[in-house]
Amino acid sequence: MAVVHVIEGRQKRIEMGHPWVYKTEIAKIEGEVTGGEIVDVLDFRQRFLGRGFINPRSMLTVRILTQDREEAITEKTIRERIRKAWFFRQRVFQAPEPNACRVIFGEADFLPGLIVDKFGDHLVLQTLALGIAQWQDVIVDELASLIKPVGIYARNDQQVRSIEGLEEYKGCLFGRCQPLVTIEENGLKVYVDIENGQKTGYFLDQKENRRAIKPYVQNARVLDCFCHTGSFALHAAYYGAREVQGLDISPEAIAMAQKNAALNNFTNITFKEANVFDELRTLTEAKEKYDVVILDPPAFTKSKAAVKGAIRGYKEINLRAMKLLPPGGILITNSCSYYMSEDLYLETIADAARDAKRRVRIIELRRQAKDHPMLMGYPESYYLKCFILEVV
Amino acid sequence: MAVVHVIEGRQKRIEMGHPWVYKTEIAKIEGEVTGGEIVDVLDFRQRFLGRGFINPRSMLTVRILTQDREEAITEKTIRERIRKAWFFRQRVFQAPEPNACRVIFGEADFLPGLIVDKFGDHLVLQTLALGIAQWQDVIVDELASLIKPVGIYARNDQQVRSIEGLEEYKGCLFGRCQPLVTIEENGLKVYVDIENGQKTGYFLDQKENRRAIKPYVQNARVLDCFCHTGSFALHAAYYGAREVQGLDISPEAIAMAQKNAALNNFTNITFKEANVFDELRTLTEAKEKYDVVILDPPAFTKSKAAVKGAIRGYKEINLRAMKLLPPGGILITNSCSYYMSEDLYLETIADAARDAKRRVRIIELRRQAKDHPMLMGYPESYYLKCFILEVV
Repeated sequence: MAVVHVIEGRQKRIEMGHPWVYKTEIAKIEGEVTGGEIVDVLDFRQRFLGRGFINPRSMLTVRILTQDREEAITEKTIRERIRKAWFFRQRVFQAPEPNACRVIFGEADFLPGLIVDKFGDHLVLQTLALGIAQWQDVIVDELASLIKPVGIYARNDQQVRSIEGLEEYKGCLFGRCQPLVTIEENGLKVYVDIENGQKTGYFLDQKENRRAIKPYVQNARVLDCFCHTGSFALHAAYYGAREVQGLDISPEAIAMAQKNAALNNFTNITFKEANVFDELRTLTEAKEKYDVVILDPPAFTKSKAAVKGAIRGYKEINLRAMKLLPPGGILITNSCSYYMSEDLYLETIADAARDAKRRVRIIELRRQAKDHPMLMGYPESYYLKCFILEVV
Repeated sequence: MAVVHVIEGRQKRIEMGHPWVYKTEIAKIEGEVTGGEIVDVLDFRQRFLGRGFINPRSMLTVRILTQDREEAITEKTIRERIRKAWFFRQRVFQAPEPNACRVIFGEADFLPGLIVDKFGDHLVLQTLALGIAQWQDVIVDELASLIKPVGIYARNDQQVRSIEGLEEYKGCLFGRCQPLVTIEENGLKVYVDIENGQKTGYFLDQKENRRAIKPYVQNARVLDCFCHTGSFALHAAYYGAREVQGLDISPEAIAMAQKNAALNNFTNITFKEANVFDELRTLTEAKEKYDVVILDPPAFTKSKAAVKGAIRGYKEINLRAMKLLPPGGILITNSCSYYMSEDLYLETIADAARDAKRRVRIIELRRQAKDHPMLMGYPESYYLKCFILEVV
């Protein structure tokens, strides 16, 4: 087995459980390596740090699978970790078969680069790193026998695969796959376009946050910004909102949101294709008022360098949302950017509140759903913030 | 009205909504003041910062009630704020009359120094600042007509009252008060000793966190450390634990915990009077194993200066708890100290995990119950952390 030596001073993060070794952290590689194989990682004093997949062409060169020197990484390891991940979802949701959930959340399930979502009787899989992609047949086999889905669909049409030297493609890997699947979420029916939807087709990480809006929407006029396929808006209607408006820039998302409203027989929701920034301005100028405003934007930053611009964007939408709320109005504001920490996002909202001359009370500080566990030592896995605020 | 001038450079915190002006931040006081009266607070440029109660003998000299120059503080203000606070609890719990909840949470309900808890048909009140204590008769009158309790009991036997120049006492203020009240929490019955229990008699801030343990305790062997009157332990038994052990150093708390177990007909809980630090060591040495360990200690620090010692204490109990857990075991670990921020507490647990040679996955990062809202700009109100962790 080849050995990767980490530069002096760079071992601490890995010791504390961060599962990545960057190319810039490597002093030398001892032995011949081919992409995807298992290597040992040692610190500058030759102490064992971990064992994982190597991909010499990736900046993210080693993805560690174990910190236990005695543990070999074999087919059995991969199969066992898949079983443990499934057991974990059954446990946290107290259900022998959750209708829709994230089954495998990559590094946080000790399977770096692997994402598996369950949508009704289908599974959608992504192998986003060379090392794990080599085990794809084993993974599909294990998932098929463990969960017995009707179909397993690959959404490997992700750019990150090219960086890893893998082809980009999508298609059915097992069974018979339907392109459009209906799932149940908190009692609602939702269409998931597993073939062409964003990422795996649907964002399951907000499941519990969508349920958490229940106390605030009864008889309310609700505005759902960046509504995507309508999930928060649908929940608002389901929990008794008087009138719901959804906004999203994507015509495909809006069309699907409308189908979802029809599927649940909701007649008090309207969805509109719009640039949310512009629309919020228009609504403020028109002095519109809502009892509840939901902001669930895509990540405004995916890098540390872009944080400043992102803060401006988050501040603007939160400020405008506050202006649409009467005293006692509820703001449900989300950020899925890892680079916006909870503290930084709270600060940004405090700034917006000052400019809006409003006081804010925090009712709940929420994170992602329980099927997206956070791995301690790997802060990239703590990415989602959902704040439920009262604007006094 | 007297005017308090704040030293240059100290206005920002107050502008951002922090409701306290410390003695050390005051440049001068213009006009005669008597303790408890309303004053205006201005910054060094004579800009209005807020209006609030003054107590010249307290380090915490002014407690701001409004940042709106146009808002007078009158009896009507106090009554309205009480009504809004009650409406807020009805809203967040979607109940016209929550059986047990915090009705008023001081500054976060814009009523500085006032705490009111509802325990079944009783209210327990604390007026912990001179300014608010002067309104106690109005407060009692408003609460009586609004909530119609059988009794309102004062737990003004708090040391902080002496600092404010108020007498320490307890007793019935309205109606007929029973010393021991039975409440219902998440379907369980719990005795609350409103006369002699800690603070108001029972810690309501963990209500939702106690419910959140449900997925993890079925058939489990559970250890509840610092169990006080048994609330986490009782919930564990209620949600199907096989065997529950509770530990607390207070004989009164243990006696009440035992009464609570009997009240709910639980026969698989034992409560033991013990120093948790010592007992955790003994259990580790005896190689005992639990499926779930709960740590809910009192605040190890109530000042910034004592944080270092507190970190040592929190690290020790978390480390020892991890040693009692098999792979896949659940650690439910709490800190109610404001000075242990979420990040600092996570770091402390990460350190403990490294020493214990264990990996930790975060399932939930929780805060206090919704009837203890957090006021943005007043971080002292974000004090409770409840982490649900899997120790892999």
